[in-house]
Amino acid sequence: MTKELRINGERLWDSLMEMAEIGATSRGGCNRQALTDEDKRGRDLFVSWCKAVGCSVSFDEMGNIFARREGNNPEAAPVITGSHLDTQPTGGKFDGVYGVLAGLEVLRTLTEQDITTEAPLEVVVWTNEEGARFAPAMVGSGVWAGEMARDDIYAIEDKSGKRFGDELERIGYKGELPAAPRPIRAAFETHIEQGPILEAEELQIGVLTGVQGSRWYDLVIEGQPVHAGPTPMEVRRDPFMAALPIMQFCYELAARHAPWGRATFGDIKAEPGSRNTVPERLVVNVDLRHPDPEVLDSMDREFRDYVTTACAEKKLAGRVEELWHMPVTQFDPDCVEAVRSATAELGYSNLEMVSGAGHDSLYVAKVAPTSMIFVPCKDGISHNEAEDAKPEDLEAGCNVLLHAMLKMAG
Amino acid sequence: MTKELRINGERLWDSLMEMAEIGATSRGGCNRQALTDEDKRGRDLFVSWCKAVGCSVSFDEMGNIFARREGNNPEAAPVITGSHLDTQPTGGKFDGVYGVLAGLEVLRTLTEQDITTEAPLEVVVWTNEEGARFAPAMVGSGVWAGEMARDDIYAIEDKSGKRFGDELERIGYKGELPAAPRPIRAAFETHIEQGPILEAEELQIGVLTGVQGSRWYDLVIEGQPVHAGPTPMEVRRDPFMAALPIMQFCYELAARHAPWGRATFGDIKAEPGSRNTVPERLVVNVDLRHPDPEVLDSMDREFRDYVTTACAEKKLAGRVEELWHMPVTQFDPDCVEAVRSATAELGYSNLEMVSGAGHDSLYVAKVAPTSMIFVPCKDGISHNEAEDAKPEDLEAGCNVLLHAMLKMAG
Repeated sequence: MTKELRINGERLWDSLMEMAEIGATSRGGCNRQALTDEDKRGRDLFVSWCKAVGCSVSFDEMGNIFARREGNNPEAAPVITGSHLDTQPTGGKFDGVYGVLAGLEVLRTLTEQDITTEAPLEVVVWTNEEGARFAPAMVGSGVWAGEMARDDIYAIEDKSGKRFGDELERIGYKGELPAAPRPIRAAFETHIEQGPILEAEELQIGVLTGVQGSRWYDLVIEGQPVHAGPTPMEVRRDPFMAALPIMQFCYELAARHAPWGRATFGDIKAEPGSRNTVPERLVVNVDLRHPDPEVLDSMDREFRDYVTTACAEKKLAGRVEELWHMPVTQFDPDCVEAVRSATAELGYSNLEMVSGAGHDSLYVAKVAPTSMIFVPCKDGISHNEAEDAKPEDLEAGCNVLLHAMLKMAG
Repeated sequence: MTKELRINGERLWDSLMEMAEIGATSRGGCNRQALTDEDKRGRDLFVSWCKAVGCSVSFDEMGNIFARREGNNPEAAPVITGSHLDTQPTGGKFDGVYGVLAGLEVLRTLTEQDITTEAPLEVVVWTNEEGARFAPAMVGSGVWAGEMARDDIYAIEDKSGKRFGDELERIGYKGELPAAPRPIRAAFETHIEQGPILEAEELQIGVLTGVQGSRWYDLVIEGQPVHAGPTPMEVRRDPFMAALPIMQFCYELAARHAPWGRATFGDIKAEPGSRNTVPERLVVNVDLRHPDPEVLDSMDREFRDYVTTACAEKKLAGRVEELWHMPVTQFDPDCVEAVRSATAELGYSNLEMVSGAGHDSLYVAKVAPTSMIFVPCKDGISHNEAEDAKPEDLEAGCNVLLHAMLKMAG
């Protein structure tokens, strides 16, 4: 009987749409930033739904919510799934929310069918995944996994000077439970892809084997600020003269390691930033990614070497400041296999892939066997009010989640 | 006797150093921004010096100061010289000030030698050449030449919200005299080069034949803001992918029209400017210059064509917004000849050149026969506290000014 078990796609969709009304924007998206009144309302709605299916609900000192459905063996480590309910300021209806409500739909289905697993099941809402109001991102799972210090996060202020800790308390989700890992049998997260690959290849399920590694740098090049008119080109020390070939080289690095290499320049700043003065300093944000740690290391080396060469050639002082190195994450083979075999048994078209973006699973994977399930989203667009996904794809991902959880929960 | 006439270089230097004490900075520069208390003190000092040599002093509704030494023919149009006393916030001792005090030194020399010219001579201080506190630049000469509207300039506010008109009145230099041109026999301006050419070629005098034309643009490229991780490089619409080759092309344009072609990117802005998001919009300040109007026009066309091509190739929407077109200025042949022959007679090494930077003479030239005289400055550095020039070069420039003015004043 279990093999034939399917979730209720219509109910899942309805729940997504109901949640999307909280913080709904005029352009069809959601603004439900972490620890706002809207976040509280979203959490309250989720908790009420979980209680209606008989779950016990608790939350920890970071406001991470755990909705637990007991198994036959109360001593067994739970199988968990979850994601986040907070959104970007101009976010969509699916990013994060889908992962939470897919978990809820699994619990609803099992309750409806009166199925009890051996291990307990839990659906988790991780606090402030987006980092839009309180940077950085993924702090709920980050503190829980021991990668961030609780009190540092409490002290973070939003733009209006309100502190994370105070706001967490204000919305009533500062719990007593320590935010710390405990034995976990397996952890899953369903998520929209936030990229165009599955849609382009007309596939329904992404079986995630890991998360890309990324390295964040500031490329800083010092020049000489001279007037745009009188100074001949050949005597200028213009930071752009090295920056342009270096940035072009980063694109070449990504292309050489296609299809998974990535090079992104999210921001750039010229100082003093006067229209008719050669910049004295240029700072370029460089983000290099690859899922293979060796390739990412070689991209790092080649990038640094090229910066040295290009700056020397143009007689400029350049340096690479590495701000962050998120190593490649390889998901747990058993959890990946659970997703892979569930997908195969259900007959969904699929692709084994890595995540390009960070997710709460990245931190969860540091302390628990973890994997993820992706479904396509329209045009690969996310962090945008136009974010969209097909009900049948969302249903497929949720069915994979159900069966992967059942495999691991026994 | 007149041929042997020389200015007093030591007196000129002492005046420059005395003026530099007003607004002196700890790093040896000057901060004497327009319409500040320091500007008032600088003006007052200049006025007292002019009165000491028997000049009549007046100022117009823009605060431009005219110190007049009568000639034998009071009906003759005057020969004028001048520049500005205001500085950048971290400016030097010579930019502008040299042009004003060289004029004063000419009057002092003639008075000392009891020489009276046929036409009257005037030394002018143009208000707010720098535009550092109140943008744009060169507003005193701009309004005077009819290129800007007085009341528009009066309404400009500094960063603290203070209005130009109010500040001009506050320092006591809002005159009754209309800021409007009148018959001028000839106009000269001595100035440090603010570039490295004369110093590099070990020459003392630049005989200016005109001012480079410049065109200011915003290059705007619209992209699609996607997450730096999940989106494959080949489907991205990343504005940098067109901007890099376009900017490189601008450098090639300048190189192709060496030695006078210039391409400068003073500022650049990526929106939303998030480290791990491909920019939705990139705005690059582009400044193209050349002294030959036909060449500058062809640079303009080639630049625009290349933007179209590069954006189409990368499937990006790009546009060129032209903000300012300062046409090439060609100085008056008689005034240029007066400088040229004075330089030759005095035996100074020299180069015929164009100015890369804008100066008050650019506006003055629109309504009066005009030319300029350049002297070298250390390392070509200006708009900087490190600005420096050699006393013997400043003296040479002032001697050329003296004899050029005498030629034109009869």
